[in-house]
Amino acid sequence: MDMAVEARDLVRGAAHEEVPGVTVSHSEEAGVHVTVVTVESEEGARLMGKPRGRYLTLDVPAFRDRPDEVKPSLIAVLSRKLRTLFPQAVDRTVLVVGLGNRQATPDAVGPRTVERLLVTRHLQGWVDSDLSRRMRPVAAIAPGVLGTTGVETLDIVRGLVTQIAPDLVVAIDALAARNLRRLLASVQIADTGIHPGGGVGNHRQGLTAETVGVPVVAVGVCTVVQATSIVGDALELLAQAEGAPWQEAAHRWSEAGRRRAWDAVLAPIFGTLMVTPKEVDQLVDTMADVLAESLNRSLQPQLRREEWT
Amino acid sequence: MDMAVEARDLVRGAAHEEVPGVTVSHSEEAGVHVTVVTVESEEGARLMGKPRGRYLTLDVPAFRDRPDEVKPSLIAVLSRKLRTLFPQAVDRTVLVVGLGNRQATPDAVGPRTVERLLVTRHLQGWVDSDLSRRMRPVAAIAPGVLGTTGVETLDIVRGLVTQIAPDLVVAIDALAARNLRRLLASVQIADTGIHPGGGVGNHRQGLTAETVGVPVVAVGVCTVVQATSIVGDALELLAQAEGAPWQEAAHRWSEAGRRRAWDAVLAPIFGTLMVTPKEVDQLVDTMADVLAESLNRSLQPQLRREEWT
Amino acid sequence: MDMAVEARDLVRGAAHEEVPGVTVSHSEEAGVHVTVVTVESEEGARLMGKPRGRYLTLDVPAFRDRPDEVKPSLIAVLSRKLRTLFPQAVDRTVLVVGLGNRQATPDAVGPRTVERLLVTRHLQGWVDSDLSRRMRPVAAIAPGVLGTTGVETLDIVRGLVTQIAPDLVVAIDALAARNLRRLLASVQIADTGIHPGGGVGNHRQGLTAETVGVPVVAVGVCTVVQATSIVGDALELLAQAEGAPWQEAAHRWSEAGRRRAWDAVLAPIFGTLMVTPKEVDQLVDTMADVLAESLNRSLQPQLRREEWT
Amino acid sequence: MDMAVEARDLVRGAAHEEVPGVTVSHSEEAGVHVTVVTVESEEGARLMGKPRGRYLTLDVPAFRDRPDEVKPSLIAVLSRKLRTLFPQAVDRTVLVVGLGNRQATPDAVGPRTVERLLVTRHLQGWVDSDLSRRMRPVAAIAPGVLGTTGVETLDIVRGLVTQIAPDLVVAIDALAARNLRRLLASVQIADTGIHPGGGVGNHRQGLTAETVGVPVVAVGVCTVVQATSIVGDALELLAQAEGAPWQEAAHRWSEAGRRRAWDAVLAPIFGTLMVTPKEVDQLVDTMADVLAESLNRSLQPQLRREEWT
Repeated sequence: MDMAVEARDLVRGAAHEEVPGVTVSHSEEAGVHVTVVTVESEEGARLMGKPRGRYLTLDVPAFRDRPDEVKPSLIAVLSRKLRTLFPQAVDRTVLVVGLGNRQATPDAVGPRTVERLLVTRHLQGWVDSDLSRRMRPVAAIAPGVLGTTGVETLDIVRGLVTQIAPDLVVAIDALAARNLRRLLASVQIADTGIHPGGGVGNHRQGLTAETVGVPVVAVGVCTVVQATSIVGDALELLAQAEGAPWQEAAHRWSEAGRRRAWDAVLAPIFGTLMVTPKEVDQLVDTMADVLAESLNRSLQPQLRREEWT
Repeated sequence: MDMAVEARDLVRGAAHEEVPGVTVSHSEEAGVHVTVVTVESEEGARLMGKPRGRYLTLDVPAFRDRPDEVKPSLIAVLSRKLRTLFPQAVDRTVLVVGLGNRQATPDAVGPRTVERLLVTRHLQGWVDSDLSRRMRPVAAIAPGVLGTTGVETLDIVRGLVTQIAPDLVVAIDALAARNLRRLLASVQIADTGIHPGGGVGNHRQGLTAETVGVPVVAVGVCTVVQATSIVGDALELLAQAEGAPWQEAAHRWSEAGRRRAWDAVLAPIFGTLMVTPKEVDQLVDTMADVLAESLNRSLQPQLRREEWT
Repeated sequence: MDMAVEARDLVRGAAHEEVPGVTVSHSEEAGVHVTVVTVESEEGARLMGKPRGRYLTLDVPAFRDRPDEVKPSLIAVLSRKLRTLFPQAVDRTVLVVGLGNRQATPDAVGPRTVERLLVTRHLQGWVDSDLSRRMRPVAAIAPGVLGTTGVETLDIVRGLVTQIAPDLVVAIDALAARNLRRLLASVQIADTGIHPGGGVGNHRQGLTAETVGVPVVAVGVCTVVQATSIVGDALELLAQAEGAPWQEAAHRWSEAGRRRAWDAVLAPIFGTLMVTPKEVDQLVDTMADVLAESLNRSLQPQLRREEWT
Repeated sequence: MDMAVEARDLVRGAAHEEVPGVTVSHSEEAGVHVTVVTVESEEGARLMGKPRGRYLTLDVPAFRDRPDEVKPSLIAVLSRKLRTLFPQAVDRTVLVVGLGNRQATPDAVGPRTVERLLVTRHLQGWVDSDLSRRMRPVAAIAPGVLGTTGVETLDIVRGLVTQIAPDLVVAIDALAARNLRRLLASVQIADTGIHPGGGVGNHRQGLTAETVGVPVVAVGVCTVVQATSIVGDALELLAQAEGAPWQEAAHRWSEAGRRRAWDAVLAPIFGTLMVTPKEVDQLVDTMADVLAESLNRSLQPQLRREEWT
């Protein structure tokens, strides 16, 4: 999964024209910048390369430097946004799927979130009836990736959905952002599920209402930026630097032309390389804490915090 | 899953009579002691509390002290035994399931084996046709335990079997042995699958041909001994010690009587405690190496070793 | 390090006489049972096999079953007790040493505590002068064990003390308790340092004011019980069970005699085996959280909590 | 520590002139490309920014893609090279220091190597005298980094050297390479120790014969490339691409000028970002295997392989 907010910026291009069939709104809550991109028509979907639906991006640039400080506000905003996407009735079952490879740090945010999640589906009938009435059945799995299972993630999820018939699937994934400032500083929520080809692990098949059989909410965190992307960013910066010979060249070359040249020349060499902060292990852990706590709060609105730790 | 060879010893009791409908044979291969218990009739199955089938136990007492030294012979014998249970035609798909909780060391031998396994099902069509013809499609999953997923392991496996239709399931699990000398020193193979109630993690439902829909081979390693068991062992030892007042008491009390008393008095206190060697982390890792390499060899008889590392 | 409170019970024996030169007091704070054993004279020290000094034991039996619930009170009491043992002036440097082997779960509580500690010694001169004045210089190391370093822990600590000249050393260690109810449910603090021969990892040399050159406060957590100990507990329980032939034998045999017999017969077989709860990985992690937060609070009385996360 | 072979290329610049006082030789052994840079004079040292001494670089470009395949030849060549730097008499003690932060994957190659090392110093007197005569005393420590200990690594090493008086220190470290093709594909050995300011973790003080008190051999592996470096590489590539407007600009701007501009513009943004392959966790593990086995072989020339596993 890549980011809708970035897709839109790309589509708008240098002219900053609006994309037909796509609306955007911005707001600020508790220091978290929230962008809502809504793809409203088929034309918008075609232009964006993303299906109709709502895509929320929560940007917290300070997270990378001071994760513990901004964690509480991110959890507060994220759990509020998630709650609006979950069934209100707490007797509806939710299956949380942690995508990605737990052995590769930048791809491990999904599995690590699932490890910290409050799982309750199996407790029905074992807890008292008051608690049971207020506790949503939540199941969770971190199925692994194609390279370690030999099975498409979609097939594993589909098999499980057949067996336990959840009302909703929530898929947690690591994203590759284009823009450095989103690196370990942004969370995206989409009510359209996960579409093929994006993400760190490059799922070959998506997880959507069509393929899975029940609605899919996707939650993604940018944990890497592809190496080719930062070269582009660097050239932009250099082009803006006073007096550099590059500046002139940059002006004589369209952005699209530049991107084509980079892709042709750089992709073979930088293709599989990733840019991450040095502290990626710790930041991915803290992000998994944030996602797990936000999910616990929003999935279990009727439980008191001390009932689920 | 608990051990057939121990069940038989219990059933035979002090009189060392044979159990009707159950045959036992012993052999020694490359320093590995192999016991084959075959439950041949329904009467034998009823007496043993285990379904009809073949149960092989490979005992390597030296493993606990010198794992690296005895590893090669254990792999050699284990892969030979496993091969007889797997479909000869390498176009038959096998699904390996690593049972247990990867976060709890003594229960992690299944998931850790799966991490080291040669997974090939997704490579069909991506490797050249010669290799493709010689390479068995192998898929693998470590589904987690009920407490972390909220879903019965059987349901996850059943869902996956529906999706990918393997010809055989191999289930790897941690066992609780009664006898200390089997602790991290024994591997059991059974062609009957996994039955409810045994094992470290206490699966509530078994994985068998009946419940899963395809044949299930179970591979188990003893990683813990229940604390109550070693009290029994200790009393036996003390009863044999010269001149102890216990000795006389021991002779006046039947083994069955003793076990009943221990269970009543000790189970509430020692119930969930486990006995493990101090080096359990390293020994479980080495065992996972042994199982993964033995499975790789026996599942892929037509690949050369350098083709799968 | 083994537990003073248990040494005293052993010395007192069945007669429950007081040990000369040793005083004991009990109190209850926020649900935590606190026992203070003070060894006041050389005679007491000789009888107890422990040097003169104060040994506090904090017992929280509920920790094993509900760690998250009792964590806050344990932190509150522990940090209060620790503060009385630390230099009040925050310009005095403290070196925290996490003893034990990080690769062996029950022995890893020291290294894992150190990972979570607020380390500040290197920040002097990098933070503003107000913060600098209120922040105690804290250094920390997890030196590993003799088997992984080839060097006695004492030598590593002594070398470091020579280099950085701390005013106090705090040594965190895993303990082996005799009594099951202390397993992952007790913390011991001693102002006498660590003495040879105890603990899970069996340090051959102690860490004391004499050997290290500065005062040493020891903080220990019971993470295992030796397998031989639970046999003793089991025999006590059986001896109390109505009508068992053991009961009579138990009465005819002194406790000391029994312990001697067990040691002779059982030690060779159970010697290196440990009893731990199934959830030991998670419980050791939570204990490391407790110790790190208690140390942070008591070492840094002038920092606000948000200044050190 | 950064790489001598790269420092030389930088100093030589575009004119490819030889650097006075610096000799270079190339050879190929078992598929491993070996470059020996010898800094022979003070002038050479000044020009290179590196002290007089020998710097060997072993390049194995295939490692990143097929680590298991090229591992044996890398071990063979590396252990041969290391042996020439170690004291021949096996009664001389060697202390191996694994630098870096075990919690940050690209910085963890030192600590992970130490975990796999054959440590023997404490076995003297415990093994039979024949073995004892043939076994070099080896000690090892992974002291952590300044941010986690609050103590300069040099101080920890110096303290330990005072206590155990080794004849040689071997320091293992992660390097930051400039050139992408060295990323997880090169090992550097230097007989001059480790100098301040280089490396992934940016040690503030070096580890050299002068500072430590005994000779120091440095072994380094490139695990990251700084993000700013790949921008430079990318611009080179683009400048060579036919018909790009950049090409002309590149020709009008000296390499030194370009580097200055990049540093001014890019460093503030890309400063702490790292480029790594997606498989960095597994590659760092395999490199630690390679280093540990090479060290074991070269430190213990008189032990047979089966004596040390």
